[in-house]
Amino acid sequence: MIEQLGLIGCGLMGGSFALALKKAGLVKRVVGYSKSPSTTERARRLGVIDVEAPSALLAVSGADLVVLAVPVAATESTFKAIRHLVSPNSLIMDVGSTKREVIDAARRVLREQVSCFVPAHPIAGKELAGVDHADADLYTGRQVILTPIERTLASKVEKVAQIWTALGSHVKVMTPEAHDAAYAAVSHLPHMIAFAMMNGILAQDHAQDFLSLAGPGFRDFTRIAASDPSVWRDILISNKEELLDQMQYFQRSLHALETAISATNPDALEALIEQASEGRANWRMTAIKPQS
Amino acid sequence: MIEQLGLIGCGLMGGSFALALKKAGLVKRVVGYSKSPSTTERARRLGVIDVEAPSALLAVSGADLVVLAVPVAATESTFKAIRHLVSPNSLIMDVGSTKREVIDAARRVLREQVSCFVPAHPIAGKELAGVDHADADLYTGRQVILTPIERTLASKVEKVAQIWTALGSHVKVMTPEAHDAAYAAVSHLPHMIAFAMMNGILAQDHAQDFLSLAGPGFRDFTRIAASDPSVWRDILISNKEELLDQMQYFQRSLHALETAISATNPDALEALIEQASEGRANWRMTAIKPQS
Repeated sequence: MIEQLGLIGCGLMGGSFALALKKAGLVKRVVGYSKSPSTTERARRLGVIDVEAPSALLAVSGADLVVLAVPVAATESTFKAIRHLVSPNSLIMDVGSTKREVIDAARRVLREQVSCFVPAHPIAGKELAGVDHADADLYTGRQVILTPIERTLASKVEKVAQIWTALGSHVKVMTPEAHDAAYAAVSHLPHMIAFAMMNGILAQDHAQDFLSLAGPGFRDFTRIAASDPSVWRDILISNKEELLDQMQYFQRSLHALETAISATNPDALEALIEQASEGRANWRMTAIKPQS
Repeated sequence: MIEQLGLIGCGLMGGSFALALKKAGLVKRVVGYSKSPSTTERARRLGVIDVEAPSALLAVSGADLVVLAVPVAATESTFKAIRHLVSPNSLIMDVGSTKREVIDAARRVLREQVSCFVPAHPIAGKELAGVDHADADLYTGRQVILTPIERTLASKVEKVAQIWTALGSHVKVMTPEAHDAAYAAVSHLPHMIAFAMMNGILAQDHAQDFLSLAGPGFRDFTRIAASDPSVWRDILISNKEELLDQMQYFQRSLHALETAISATNPDALEALIEQASEGRANWRMTAIKPQS
């Protein structure tokens, strides 16, 4: 049981975590802070948090679990704002989509207290941002990646893992480096491409005609293009080296398809599509609950 | 009421059309032919067709509506196989995803009887090909694009439009050129990119680790990558000029994102993502039934 959750960032991810804890009966009191006072107030009105904190530091005061749910570029300033209340007894977690930069910020600011920080990334989201879309079931059946470093205390990792498991999530532990490489490939690059796809259409005179004709394939392919701009700006920049590496693999594969198409080479093209199609058909999302 | 449907190609698209007609009570008898005799037999066992025809020509004999549901590259040879039974009384429709090449083939082979051919493209599909996945509701609430040419008889277009409307589809008429440009943008390019995305990951040593970590965003983004290789080989080649045009727009947008990321320019990057995100958030699929 958590006596008091200190939630910094009351948006979709943080708000959903608070609601999930409440639904599971795992928290007595949620003290929340968001950069925008209207968000904090809204979170309280919606019952996502119980008490509005006037600052990040005051959200931490008295909390036995602190969750940072801010855009990744805001991590360092958030650590700076709270470091005076971080002690060896603290338990701090984030929910950021990239891990190396977040951990570097934690090392720089928290110094020896970095041992209290458990870097976490729940693999869940929605294209609708903000506390109004917070959802107690967002993390149910989803994977949560923890990326502790050498100095992270095993006991802290254990506590965080227990909490996620109690929420119905599937916990996996890996290095921050392996995490960032994998998510560049399976999340960050797909978002970047979906943004480019939309912008490529919007740049054309017939954009609205084209869009009015699009069907279910387009709907699913571009769903992630509606993601939150400030959140994804930070993620793409924060993981840019891995992302640009993944771009090379993508461009090579795209070029191979383009070459087969330009040359009207149906055999080469079919072989390339077959590889992709089999690869995708054999893939199943790791999840506890059945695929929805 | 259709006395006899002649179905050439008993796969997902053709099979679903036959099932939809049957469900709506709009057809008395379906005579079907597929290139592979085992598919034709399977279609009969599943009740998708009532009678197996031993050739495309025999599927046409006695039919008041003929539907070509074959990969687009097989259109010309199919027209050749049936042309001896095509008369001014015939009504022929296809369901191909590209229209200009299909129409060119119809002109070449059918000559003056091209007036009986109504080019059609229902905007529906599944990543599971074959008659086993045929579904009477595949076209319900979906758009169906008709692309008649000058020589197409208005009365034939009218009949085809009535049939689709009776099946619960939403009929739209446009030129083959406008159709092919639009679907290069909103369907063919997304498929090509989804194939490239999968192949780019599969080319890497850690492919299976990466894939095991992918979540719901990846699931939706890559769904169309599992599409049927021979169908999509034909579509991409058949519409290659428009497709390669669309590639230019996409690459320009992708390059703009890449530049902002490489230069660590959060403002430029956020503006680009904002454009994409707003464009996608404001888009709604044209459909009669509510979005599923």
